[in-house]
Amino acid sequence: MKQASLNARTADVLRRLVRRRADPSVRKVLATARPPDIAAAISHLTGAEQRKLFSLIEDLEVAADVMTSLGEDAVLEVTRGMTDERLVALLDYMEPDDATDVVEVLPDELRARVVAHLRGDAEDEVADLLAWPSDSAGGIMSPVVFKQQESVTCGAAIEELQARHEELDSVFYLYVVDARERLVGVVSLRALLIHGPRTPLVSVMSQDIIAVRPNTDQEEVARIVARYDLLAVPVVDEESRLMGIVTVDDVIDVIREEAVEDMMLLAGVAEDIDLNGRSVFRLVRDRGWWLLATAFGGIIADRSIHLFQAGVPVEAIAGLIPVVMGMGGNVGIQSTTITVRAQATGALDMTGALNFVWREMKVAAMLGSIYGLILGGYGLMSGWPDLRIGASVGTSVFLAILIGGSLGAGLPVVLSRFGVDPAVATGPFVTTTVDNLGIIIFFNIVRLFLGV
Amino acid sequence: MKQASLNARTADVLRRLVRRRADPSVRKVLATARPPDIAAAISHLTGAEQRKLFSLIEDLEVAADVMTSLGEDAVLEVTRGMTDERLVALLDYMEPDDATDVVEVLPDELRARVVAHLRGDAEDEVADLLAWPSDSAGGIMSPVVFKQQESVTCGAAIEELQARHEELDSVFYLYVVDARERLVGVVSLRALLIHGPRTPLVSVMSQDIIAVRPNTDQEEVARIVARYDLLAVPVVDEESRLMGIVTVDDVIDVIREEAVEDMMLLAGVAEDIDLNGRSVFRLVRDRGWWLLATAFGGIIADRSIHLFQAGVPVEAIAGLIPVVMGMGGNVGIQSTTITVRAQATGALDMTGALNFVWREMKVAAMLGSIYGLILGGYGLMSGWPDLRIGASVGTSVFLAILIGGSLGAGLPVVLSRFGVDPAVATGPFVTTTVDNLGIIIFFNIVRLFLGV
Repeated sequence: MKQASLNARTADVLRRLVRRRADPSVRKVLATARPPDIAAAISHLTGAEQRKLFSLIEDLEVAADVMTSLGEDAVLEVTRGMTDERLVALLDYMEPDDATDVVEVLPDELRARVVAHLRGDAEDEVADLLAWPSDSAGGIMSPVVFKQQESVTCGAAIEELQARHEELDSVFYLYVVDARERLVGVVSLRALLIHGPRTPLVSVMSQDIIAVRPNTDQEEVARIVARYDLLAVPVVDEESRLMGIVTVDDVIDVIREEAVEDMMLLAGVAEDIDLNGRSVFRLVRDRGWWLLATAFGGIIADRSIHLFQAGVPVEAIAGLIPVVMGMGGNVGIQSTTITVRAQATGALDMTGALNFVWREMKVAAMLGSIYGLILGGYGLMSGWPDLRIGASVGTSVFLAILIGGSLGAGLPVVLSRFGVDPAVATGPFVTTTVDNLGIIIFFNIVRLFLGV
Repeated sequence: MKQASLNARTADVLRRLVRRRADPSVRKVLATARPPDIAAAISHLTGAEQRKLFSLIEDLEVAADVMTSLGEDAVLEVTRGMTDERLVALLDYMEPDDATDVVEVLPDELRARVVAHLRGDAEDEVADLLAWPSDSAGGIMSPVVFKQQESVTCGAAIEELQARHEELDSVFYLYVVDARERLVGVVSLRALLIHGPRTPLVSVMSQDIIAVRPNTDQEEVARIVARYDLLAVPVVDEESRLMGIVTVDDVIDVIREEAVEDMMLLAGVAEDIDLNGRSVFRLVRDRGWWLLATAFGGIIADRSIHLFQAGVPVEAIAGLIPVVMGMGGNVGIQSTTITVRAQATGALDMTGALNFVWREMKVAAMLGSIYGLILGGYGLMSGWPDLRIGASVGTSVFLAILIGGSLGAGLPVVLSRFGVDPAVATGPFVTTTVDNLGIIIFFNIVRLFLGV
């Protein structure tokens, strides 16, 4: 039996063999490797090597599975130069939701061409899925659902499952609908197994249905699946008619994707950055725009210092600018991160928001007092004879931290009240604003205390 | 049928009713509310209100389910003042892995008392689970597994499932073991349903088993479940004997938890911060220690500036300190975040690490050139007649960004090579180091260019 730790090595081995152009050995490894491991190997190769390795996969079904596990860049790469016929054949092997994910990243012209050539049903299903935003329940749902009428018995349902087992290859629940196709109940496979074959579904089904709408945001879908420990959640229209299901494996991808997005946005990196991407230019673009905010903020800081430096002993306090800025900025980052994450996991909702911000302000006031005293003490001892400099440092650190904590927690709350994704705008914005306010406060406190 | 968007309201309604002390109404809502919604309501209340609401839950099974969904602080709160008998009764209703999670947060004395009073089997199971680290496969696995010998038929397996259906309430797969209890195959419930009752398990089971060891890190378990789209992964000992399973709902919790931890550590917040926590003092403690690094770094920066300021026109360049620091620091945060996240998701492994760091250095060199030119240009125009100041700003920004990117990507790679969690040490450490190097570079470049 293979231990899981061995699986990662398959990817390594494949990578090395492709680099050495050892085609026969590659084919041998491919014949027994699991599709996700092949995909992992591909993600670390250069473009030409990716196309090469993918072309060596002989089994169409395996190739389709591999493509399903690839990132967007790699999908684009391996489809380049592929014949339309092969691409259509691969898409025909996929579940409609997976096929849609692949089709979505193709260039417009190629996409139109291949969708038109899919098998009858698949063409409609993919076209339907393409109609929903890719980050909504409709965009990630699978239209293949195992559903039955209320009057059907457990035994009949099992026979149906046996007859359609090829098509229904990821079934978690049986959904029960009424004569008008409205969802009225849900039966687990386990329940189907433990009840007698003559029991009607209506008497074993659970009527406590948790469902989402096709336009529900995928982050909300993920929260629901996580909160209620579901394996799949049904997607229904406004009349409660069953449209599809979102399965737990897709939800795991959403949770990972959204966590990456939030982290990247807070760090000032474009949210859709490809961690496996190899293009240095794209990475520069993904990060360069946000740095413009930092650069612009820095220029404002320089202007502020020039504006307020009259009468201030700049030589003495220049060395303290970094610490006043840094303390306020770092508390701002802490508060922003805590608030954005609490919103994402559902720990913070609108009704609790005021209390949350108030608590963050109390925390900031306490941290500000502690570090105001420590750094004020350092300021007093740091060689400048005028004690008022030390007092200014302490006061400025206190105020910078208080502002950092308040803005860091308050801004995401305000933004989400106005329907803006709080992670998008807060990271670099909070830091730049807090940095600048810290400098303005510092110089003006010094002026105030020195009476200039 | 309830739409999912309505579920969140149950939590709100409960919260408001408890605050208004409307006990009869609270009981009415509790009778129909879902346990995870009750838990969500509890998480937003004060300590006394939490105990109150929990005590109003009449059904023991519901109360046990609610407790399973609570955070650690809330578990401590609702168990305070509870009789040992009630707590033991609640634990007896839980799955062993859930009971272990609750028992783990109890004070030592209480823990020993209640574990000793659990039903025979449960006591052993909980004690076994407590023996593994809580962040390992052994610490999160459920010991309740549906397993059968190879020679058993599908029909007999279904009968066994029917007989034990109360105990086996979250079955995803049937595990097939040989005479020595070694795991040799896995059968999905779907496979059990679609094959004839006389088919032996050995002929329908998949022998391509993905398993983990009890000491496998939970983050690695999560990566495996996510990569292979599993509903559960078996945990086996060194002889391949089946010890338990880790289910997908626990994996979702792990993924969310680990993402929060990484984000918090990068932002300089203790990794185990409770987003629902209400204690201001604990939040100050969770954040205060990291700020000490910032404060200490700031003091070093002040010392560096004093050390290198002889002959430097401090009044002219003081305003530019923030932008040199900010650019280097922010590129450092970007690179650290990208690297830590790439490691966590498995996109970056050791064999690709050198290429990854090299790519980050190229990106940093390019970003440094762009912003070195922009800010150097600003320095040239910013009023100081000596063009060498502008040139120093540009050069310093270039070098600060290059160092920020290189350290930000390199440090997590080096740390994880030495087995240190890269997220733990990098966030505030990288920022503080890069900030200080930026300042030292800036002042010395100015001295170099001015020839002082």
